[in-house]
Amino acid sequence: MPEETEIVNYLFRRLYQLGIRSIHGVPGDFNLVALDYLDPVGLNWVGNCSELNAGYAADGYARINGISAVITTFGVGELSAVPAVRPMGHLAPTPHALCTMEVDYIKTFELTIAGRQIAGSYSERVSVVHIVGVPSTKAERHGIPLHHTFADGDFSVFRNISKNISQVSVILDDVKSAGKEIDRVLRALPTDMVLSKIPAQGLDTPIDLTLPPNDTNSEAKAVESIMKALYASNNAIILVDVGAMRYRVLKEVQEFIDRSQLPVFLTPMSRGAINEASPHFVGVYIGDVSRPEIQQAVQSADLIFSIGALNTDFNSGGFTNSTKPKHTIELQPDCIKIGYATYLDVGMKSVLQRLLDSVDFRNFSQDPQGVIVKTKIPQNIDQQMEFTALSSQEITQKWFWSHIGDWLQEDDVVIAEIGTPSFGIMDTRFPKGVTAITQMLWGSIGFSVGACQGAALAITESGRPSRRVILFVGDGSFQLTGNEVSTMIRYGLKPIIIVINNDGYTTERMIHGPEMSYNDIQPWKYRRFFKAFGAKKGEYKNYVVKTRTEFRNIFKPGNEFSKANVIQMVELFMPKMDVPHGLYSTMEALTKFYAKL
Amino acid sequence: MPEETEIVNYLFRRLYQLGIRSIHGVPGDFNLVALDYLDPVGLNWVGNCSELNAGYAADGYARINGISAVITTFGVGELSAVPAVRPMGHLAPTPHALCTMEVDYIKTFELTIAGRQIAGSYSERVSVVHIVGVPSTKAERHGIPLHHTFADGDFSVFRNISKNISQVSVILDDVKSAGKEIDRVLRALPTDMVLSKIPAQGLDTPIDLTLPPNDTNSEAKAVESIMKALYASNNAIILVDVGAMRYRVLKEVQEFIDRSQLPVFLTPMSRGAINEASPHFVGVYIGDVSRPEIQQAVQSADLIFSIGALNTDFNSGGFTNSTKPKHTIELQPDCIKIGYATYLDVGMKSVLQRLLDSVDFRNFSQDPQGVIVKTKIPQNIDQQMEFTALSSQEITQKWFWSHIGDWLQEDDVVIAEIGTPSFGIMDTRFPKGVTAITQMLWGSIGFSVGACQGAALAITESGRPSRRVILFVGDGSFQLTGNEVSTMIRYGLKPIIIVINNDGYTTERMIHGPEMSYNDIQPWKYRRFFKAFGAKKGEYKNYVVKTRTEFRNIFKPGNEFSKANVIQMVELFMPKMDVPHGLYSTMEALTKFYAKL
Repeated sequence: MPEETEIVNYLFRRLYQLGIRSIHGVPGDFNLVALDYLDPVGLNWVGNCSELNAGYAADGYARINGISAVITTFGVGELSAVPAVRPMGHLAPTPHALCTMEVDYIKTFELTIAGRQIAGSYSERVSVVHIVGVPSTKAERHGIPLHHTFADGDFSVFRNISKNISQVSVILDDVKSAGKEIDRVLRALPTDMVLSKIPAQGLDTPIDLTLPPNDTNSEAKAVESIMKALYASNNAIILVDVGAMRYRVLKEVQEFIDRSQLPVFLTPMSRGAINEASPHFVGVYIGDVSRPEIQQAVQSADLIFSIGALNTDFNSGGFTNSTKPKHTIELQPDCIKIGYATYLDVGMKSVLQRLLDSVDFRNFSQDPQGVIVKTKIPQNIDQQMEFTALSSQEITQKWFWSHIGDWLQEDDVVIAEIGTPSFGIMDTRFPKGVTAITQMLWGSIGFSVGACQGAALAITESGRPSRRVILFVGDGSFQLTGNEVSTMIRYGLKPIIIVINNDGYTTERMIHGPEMSYNDIQPWKYRRFFKAFGAKKGEYKNYVVKTRTEFRNIFKPGNEFSKANVIQMVELFMPKMDVPHGLYSTMEALTKFYAKL
Repeated sequence: MPEETEIVNYLFRRLYQLGIRSIHGVPGDFNLVALDYLDPVGLNWVGNCSELNAGYAADGYARINGISAVITTFGVGELSAVPAVRPMGHLAPTPHALCTMEVDYIKTFELTIAGRQIAGSYSERVSVVHIVGVPSTKAERHGIPLHHTFADGDFSVFRNISKNISQVSVILDDVKSAGKEIDRVLRALPTDMVLSKIPAQGLDTPIDLTLPPNDTNSEAKAVESIMKALYASNNAIILVDVGAMRYRVLKEVQEFIDRSQLPVFLTPMSRGAINEASPHFVGVYIGDVSRPEIQQAVQSADLIFSIGALNTDFNSGGFTNSTKPKHTIELQPDCIKIGYATYLDVGMKSVLQRLLDSVDFRNFSQDPQGVIVKTKIPQNIDQQMEFTALSSQEITQKWFWSHIGDWLQEDDVVIAEIGTPSFGIMDTRFPKGVTAITQMLWGSIGFSVGACQGAALAITESGRPSRRVILFVGDGSFQLTGNEVSTMIRYGLKPIIIVINNDGYTTERMIHGPEMSYNDIQPWKYRRFFKAFGAKKGEYKNYVVKTRTEFRNIFKPGNEFSKANVIQMVELFMPKMDVPHGLYSTMEALTKFYAKL
């Protein structure tokens, strides 16, 4: 490594050091020079079909790889990526929080919600780095009426837009020896500066990603209270929510489960966070939308050990998931709540580690097996609302989601589009090691197709490239971002894409206007897209599934389809007016909830 | 009309009264109820493939129809439409300025640039109305952690984002009898309020769209000075730029041209603003990028009568278009500049009308025919930079753009994507009545496909539905929004789509990294898309053009292709490294310009 290096080289090397191997995005006049520096660093460039798709793809990549980056150009490009940003509510300041990095003006943006939710948060890390190539400092200083601007000399409008979902942040400022240089890298990179030289020595020191320590006294007190409550409980349960994933405490959580032997519940957003094939796993808790047995098991527990809870409408069965505070211990990244007491600025990772060191798990007097036996329901005997099938061959939502689990296999990556897939899959039990990707909060339709491309790419780069990537997407959602199948073909990715053809926006039909034409879509010929996007003969396969018999023939573990080494698409027909129980019940619960407001 | 009506009904009736017949958008949970009210009012709903596409389509529709509207849903939907908003620089406060209307919270947004550029501007009108369905007031009041939010109780973040390209505005506040009610309609329409009743009587009074009057003394002085300069000049010319179109003074301008007989020049952004087949039209002035004769004719004129100039990088030949202030009269919507004197707050429409009333056109002593004869160049003898064709059959940019004009016919609508089409078409002379659509300022690739759908729809609804709609789009740009061809098929629109297959982002190759892989794209099989998007046999036609002979066979006036009544796509091959002279010269001029900064 020479003593000095270009800013862009420094930045890209840092991204590489953080584990990124492919960068998503769309080339544009203001980022082209920077792109030259990807290859020498060992970073692959993924040219997506659009910036929106690139944002979704980077999101999917980060969910597998832990971190990702997307590069767009000024104005037109960066705005197109904005809606792809996946906000994570108060979970934003994860160990690798979302970050929009305008590579310009001494400004590095980070999600506003990070700072707003967690006062004094610092040392935030990056999950999706958004790098925007911007015009030269000269052009801005002179207010040149450039294309991609409003020709009013104001170049700041796009930064201002980003600020609404970001905030200026001293990102990575706990980096020790190279701190200042990294700040410079992350802060300043207009097109005329990308080749400016900066000292390279910072790169020799890995970025320090450790969390700031908790206050020792507060933490000790919290740990003591938690232990007391655990020892006193008779039928405690563990409720693992999405925060446990985003804040990366899953290792600690899994150890806690294994050693405590307590029954474990997940939420719609934390699917796959722990091994669902484990004997400790009971089911998915979604308030009143859960099966009655699960609902009862959680709500009658005398201690709910809740980790990383995120209370949103779709994650909570329409806000029917409440548990009694006096029976609840809630671990969050920024605080610990024990009954009615809150310990602020005590983070859960360190608390979990302390508990693992201190708790005498032999001391537990409860009988968790009773809870598990009582509530565990064989997968195929589901309680979903029955849609009256027109024939015994019709594939209803109920039938599909209660059978697809049998076909899934260990370590599958399952991506479920918001809508019928994300709600239908709530009750599908996953084999061990399944990674689930949904977008229950942001709920931007079309997300899953881009995310599938990103996830599939991250899998090929991972240590286990043979993991299957399976996408469930409705026909309505597919219309927004289906062109990203082109990028999958381009890079030889081989996901299984299951397009649910139910003749339009079925989820919206349930919400309003079941027969209105605005919920219709143009019917596409899905089998024609692989060829249209340039896939070569023998490199893809198409299937159509209209009956249960056809389903059973194709979705058969170990058959050619299930282990194929080509990209595959299944057009799977379901009734136009059929929705999963989870969707229906959530909407019903929300209606009641709003009526009481 | 009953005495009271739903707010949404009032709003939609107003949009109808303003001339809108179709509304673009994507349905979403927070706008569904409102959509029910479109049909009874006589408004068609166009369900686009994505919000980005919908925004582009609404833009194209407005460019034909004068005004359009796009409806999206909260958060995910509205953000996706943001980049489609077409900013028009200081031309924003047109008689129908761009407007983002968050149908919520007593807020109506209008482009910030409107207010920022023209101090005290008021009575702004709408060109693209962006209506956003938002959650109920209840949900916001209680800060419910809803999907499509960040689950932090803050619903304002998206409004704040819109504010950056909009501003709160007393839009339509010069409406007389129904002013307050219209304000209410435009300001307040959350999902729980769309059905609230308001008095209906306002609808009986058409919205008053007249401009506020100029100050009488300033205007008189300006008109007097202009007349003096006109009478004193010997070789005056008229330069019509895009502002003349956006501010709707074309009728006045055309009359001024006809009566003065002065030679007329257009700019890249004002193509089609006046009849290019008229004997008064000389050519397109783009500074040093223009043909030398044109450049000389403009720069040697002793009076440049400039109307609605917009000085941006691509509209000015890289800022080489300057004319001497002492020889220039510049008419703008908010001011008149005569030599070194500026008359503020004097708008051009009224000034033009005064000039038409007052000028004695017989008094002109100049010899405009001399200018015209000297500078007019037959269309096929162009001065474009020669790309060395590999064979006499290769279709180069130079050859294509100098021949395509022969095939265009009167009243065609020509849409040229930013990139090689928008620059290539600069020197193509249009027949009478051609409407040209490009996006030279915002330059968002993919725009043209959506805009083509919107424009084609507006044409079918216009009094002259037989006008041809012709799209020129590069293969790279087509990848972003090609799915909108689906919507064209869905509604039986019949544009001619010419996809220039030059193997990737050719414009970007010229800017940087000609052989770099980031400028490559996945090769698509364009002929397969009509079928994939569900077009039925006989309802579409595909063509491939690789040689000049094939071009001549297909692009032959009056043949089957030229007058077909089905949607058609031509995949037209051009060399990968070939760019039009206009693009090359503009970039060269800009390089010089920045070097001098």
